[in-house]
Amino acid sequence: MNTKLNYTGSSLLIVLSGPSGAGKGTLKNLYMQEHKQNTYFSVSATTRAPRAGEIDGVDYIFVNRARFEEMKEQNEFLEYALVHGEYYATPRKNAFDELNKGNDVIFDIDVQGGLNIKKQCPEAIMIFIAPPDMDTLEHRLRKRGTETEERIIRRLKNAQGELEHIPDYDYVILNDSLEDAYKKLNSIITAEKCRSSKVALSK
Amino acid sequence: MNTKLNYTGSSLLIVLSGPSGAGKGTLKNLYMQEHKQNTYFSVSATTRAPRAGEIDGVDYIFVNRARFEEMKEQNEFLEYALVHGEYYATPRKNAFDELNKGNDVIFDIDVQGGLNIKKQCPEAIMIFIAPPDMDTLEHRLRKRGTETEERIIRRLKNAQGELEHIPDYDYVILNDSLEDAYKKLNSIITAEKCRSSKVALSK
Repeated sequence: MNTKLNYTGSSLLIVLSGPSGAGKGTLKNLYMQEHKQNTYFSVSATTRAPRAGEIDGVDYIFVNRARFEEMKEQNEFLEYALVHGEYYATPRKNAFDELNKGNDVIFDIDVQGGLNIKKQCPEAIMIFIAPPDMDTLEHRLRKRGTETEERIIRRLKNAQGELEHIPDYDYVILNDSLEDAYKKLNSIITAEKCRSSKVALSK
Repeated sequence: MNTKLNYTGSSLLIVLSGPSGAGKGTLKNLYMQEHKQNTYFSVSATTRAPRAGEIDGVDYIFVNRARFEEMKEQNEFLEYALVHGEYYATPRKNAFDELNKGNDVIFDIDVQGGLNIKKQCPEAIMIFIAPPDMDTLEHRLRKRGTETEERIIRRLKNAQGELEHIPDYDYVILNDSLEDAYKKLNSIITAEKCRSSKVALSK
């Protein structure tokens, strides 16, 4: 009569993805503020120039093309993708070290990169952050004030194609209200920790 | 550029299951208090005697054996099961009427009945409410003060077998703190409403 239920505490690999301007960075920052003690944010490497306020090693690892090629050749990336004409990549080592320590790992990544991670790690929780509509997305990209007109147009064009990939994701959060979207993100991660596969019977 | 994302609002069929004394009834009552405007609680029919405070038509539809057999023959039940020597059944019509209206339907049902519903409705969200351990379960059953010693022993014996069915459920909530367990229940249902299959692209 001493059956006991134990939470196995398996760590989660969480992919936050969606078009530029959908708000995945803001949601990730909110989440990390609240859960930093057991969650690691996987910092991507990129060849794109830093935006105002972005810090090397915190927001991205900013590298030039030559260094990027070197890291790629040394198999340091879990995946990489060419997005809006710049390279983005996910460093392999830190993410797996943190998962093995029992921490969750969160990726803030474009749709192409997210799908690449899913291929490498089928157990990834795939969350698509979607803008309520294309007009709102355009408004948000313009408000950033960090993008050239050419880049804004390219990002809007890409967004259309990215939305078609929603069925490849497990969840979609319509980011029309930040408070509501954040509540949904927390709910999804809480729910995934209640999966029956995460609870073991011990006798 | 007028792609719009719509929540299709598909209603959920939610099965709350677990051993007697695990707290599924309490969790269901809390959930219904907060979500009654869009959730229907499927009232089961049973041949067992009402406990103190239980109201016919609210907690259960209490029927005698003859009436139960009659309803069964008229195909009024989605499923029925013999549990602890008494019949329990899920009336078919009301649940499907509510789902068709766009409401969620919640079932508070023993493990055997829950698995029967899953067979009939594979889209059901299967949630197992588990006691933290068997001593706690026994303590809760005794505290109820509504059961004979024979029934308590039968329920504890059944609980062992019921716990073996956790892998057949999607989620398990360890009910060691009611507040925490209720938060998890809400999170699971919120997350299920974010499933990508519940969001449609309209153009």
